[in-house]
Amino acid sequence: MISVSEAHAALLDLCATLEIEDVPLSQAANRVLAQDVHARRDQPPFSASAMDGYAVKAEEVELHAMFQVVGEAAAGHRYDAPLKPGQAVRIFTGAPLPVGANFVVIQEDVSRKKDLITIVNQPGPSDNIRPRAGDFCSGQCLTAPRILRPADVALLAAMNIPNIPVRRRPVVALISTGDELVMPGETPGPDQIIASNTFGLKAMLESFGADARILPIAQDNIASLRTAFSLTAGADLIVTIGGASVGDHDLVARVAADLGMERAFYKVAMRPGKPLMAGRLQGTPMVGLPGNPVSAMVCGHVFLQPMIRQMCGLPAQLCQISMARLSHPTKGNGPRQHYMRATVSNGEITVADNQDSALLTVLSAANALLILPPHEPAHDAGDTVQYLPL
Amino acid sequence: MISVSEAHAALLDLCATLEIEDVPLSQAANRVLAQDVHARRDQPPFSASAMDGYAVKAEEVELHAMFQVVGEAAAGHRYDAPLKPGQAVRIFTGAPLPVGANFVVIQEDVSRKKDLITIVNQPGPSDNIRPRAGDFCSGQCLTAPRILRPADVALLAAMNIPNIPVRRRPVVALISTGDELVMPGETPGPDQIIASNTFGLKAMLESFGADARILPIAQDNIASLRTAFSLTAGADLIVTIGGASVGDHDLVARVAADLGMERAFYKVAMRPGKPLMAGRLQGTPMVGLPGNPVSAMVCGHVFLQPMIRQMCGLPAQLCQISMARLSHPTKGNGPRQHYMRATVSNGEITVADNQDSALLTVLSAANALLILPPHEPAHDAGDTVQYLPL
Repeated sequence: MISVSEAHAALLDLCATLEIEDVPLSQAANRVLAQDVHARRDQPPFSASAMDGYAVKAEEVELHAMFQVVGEAAAGHRYDAPLKPGQAVRIFTGAPLPVGANFVVIQEDVSRKKDLITIVNQPGPSDNIRPRAGDFCSGQCLTAPRILRPADVALLAAMNIPNIPVRRRPVVALISTGDELVMPGETPGPDQIIASNTFGLKAMLESFGADARILPIAQDNIASLRTAFSLTAGADLIVTIGGASVGDHDLVARVAADLGMERAFYKVAMRPGKPLMAGRLQGTPMVGLPGNPVSAMVCGHVFLQPMIRQMCGLPAQLCQISMARLSHPTKGNGPRQHYMRATVSNGEITVADNQDSALLTVLSAANALLILPPHEPAHDAGDTVQYLPL
Repeated sequence: MISVSEAHAALLDLCATLEIEDVPLSQAANRVLAQDVHARRDQPPFSASAMDGYAVKAEEVELHAMFQVVGEAAAGHRYDAPLKPGQAVRIFTGAPLPVGANFVVIQEDVSRKKDLITIVNQPGPSDNIRPRAGDFCSGQCLTAPRILRPADVALLAAMNIPNIPVRRRPVVALISTGDELVMPGETPGPDQIIASNTFGLKAMLESFGADARILPIAQDNIASLRTAFSLTAGADLIVTIGGASVGDHDLVARVAADLGMERAFYKVAMRPGKPLMAGRLQGTPMVGLPGNPVSAMVCGHVFLQPMIRQMCGLPAQLCQISMARLSHPTKGNGPRQHYMRATVSNGEITVADNQDSALLTVLSAANALLILPPHEPAHDAGDTVQYLPL
């Protein structure tokens, strides 16, 4: 039995960063930028007005000064001639500043009669100009790796990058095993239950940025498991669920071994999820999750997320550990790291009464996993503890 | 000019909750559950073993007691005969408990010789049985509305619900307006810039659960705008960007009015984003966002998110307001609610130096919008303030 951090390191050793693919900008949100991207132009590409008003020469600006309006500059349409002394150009937000102008008097500060304007309020200190390249210069870099958020997508558009180099989404093949399982919508026999883990894990893996595929349920026999494994071709990660407690032998491990699996480890000192298996099957990383629904989902959070992040070229540290105050005392922990279903509200964490690893209702109602490290002493209410947000 | 909360109320008045559609469970993650869903079965559907061990009668359990192993129960395969006194059934996690058995001695507590087992460690107080319906009963409800998370999807699977009633995704038509705009990948003229708002807003709207469609850029003329509006058929929400500052007249408002728009409001007391227009165009809600990139994105966060939530049947309150301590003093605010680009780290918020609403680099580097209400007094470092996480 190895520690959670040893398991974590061994799992990351199995995962290589995937190749880069280009996607259109409109599909780049939430993808992982794989290479630094450089702006193809200055933004703004010219000095531009920040306000609606009149472009003039700053040295001519004073209360009661008058100007002749000689033309107009709108966004997309500059005023082409150089500005001469005593002249003003009607200008709108985003329009290029005329040559020779270096100040915009906002329209609220002038009075206009036909083609003559008079400054009627003392203009403020701002020149109301957005200087060329004030947002970014040509060549400026958006650095990789990063998960692209909406504002990054807008920035890439402004940089004129129509296709974005991102990491390919890891393809995860999900295999549920067990004679007791049928698919949702089927009619289970009296000894059967509905396969739920693959559906929950697919949703979870997709939230991590993977492309998860649910394979047919594998029965508890060698032929069925071999068939399931044969359907994993092309996957970047194979995840099996269950099969560790059926009969005296672990059929999943046996069939995987027959197919040449190099096992990295078999048990992890954690609750829930002790019977966690990992290795490499014909070159592809493989993780065998326990079959209890909550165990499978907790192991997905703790172990599959860093693997997916590493494949996407992101730092793979256990992410998103947060802190909260206990609303009640907790008992001391044994030798296994415990991930307890809990609810965080207003910075206070409350552990669910029933920690049975089969209870999906408890997991669905939780929004956090309280982390109790091995041999953690008892805590009092009010103590600060670590948790993973769900 | 109306307040942010008045604008918010007026915008929600424009939005009706959309109809319900069924989606397969494998596509239900992140969708909004639209109707309460009831479990079609008990889970577990039978009393089941929580451990690998031996099923016996509780009243016969004591240290050194011996039992004859008469059969085996595995997940998916029950032992069919009733258990008689002195008998034990080899049982594995998840297997149905034999009739007449009410205790599972874990395998670590017995010694087995052929078909005889002896209890060699005093069993603990737990019967190691998961009672029938211990997770949920047939008919138990997952309540709507809620955004379906991975654990909810797993729960719905276990309840044997293959198709899920969810709200249809709101379709949002995005129209950028302006002669100065070209699409990413095109070669802009000397007075032109790249359309970035639609790309950023598309990514943002999709993160809110909408289906956003980027229409062709509308030029600053009536014919082009009319063409753009004609392409919005079928949309649940029309969003225009820009067009408020081009020429002395707002062409977007004029064309929309010609097409029969009932205007709800025109200006909001906020920074950035004062020139925000809203109404109903031939029955469809329409919002006109300002053209400055940061203004458009901030208004998307503040106004479009509650509209999308309302269309999806979720509570539409301004969501996700969080609290942090200021790392520095702030000046008092004027009459407009100010959403300042900021960075939150370890519970401390720092406002960006440059709050020009054209700067996408500043927005991309921010992870929060500090909210300064109208006439908010100056704050000291360490004061607690509200922000919207980005």
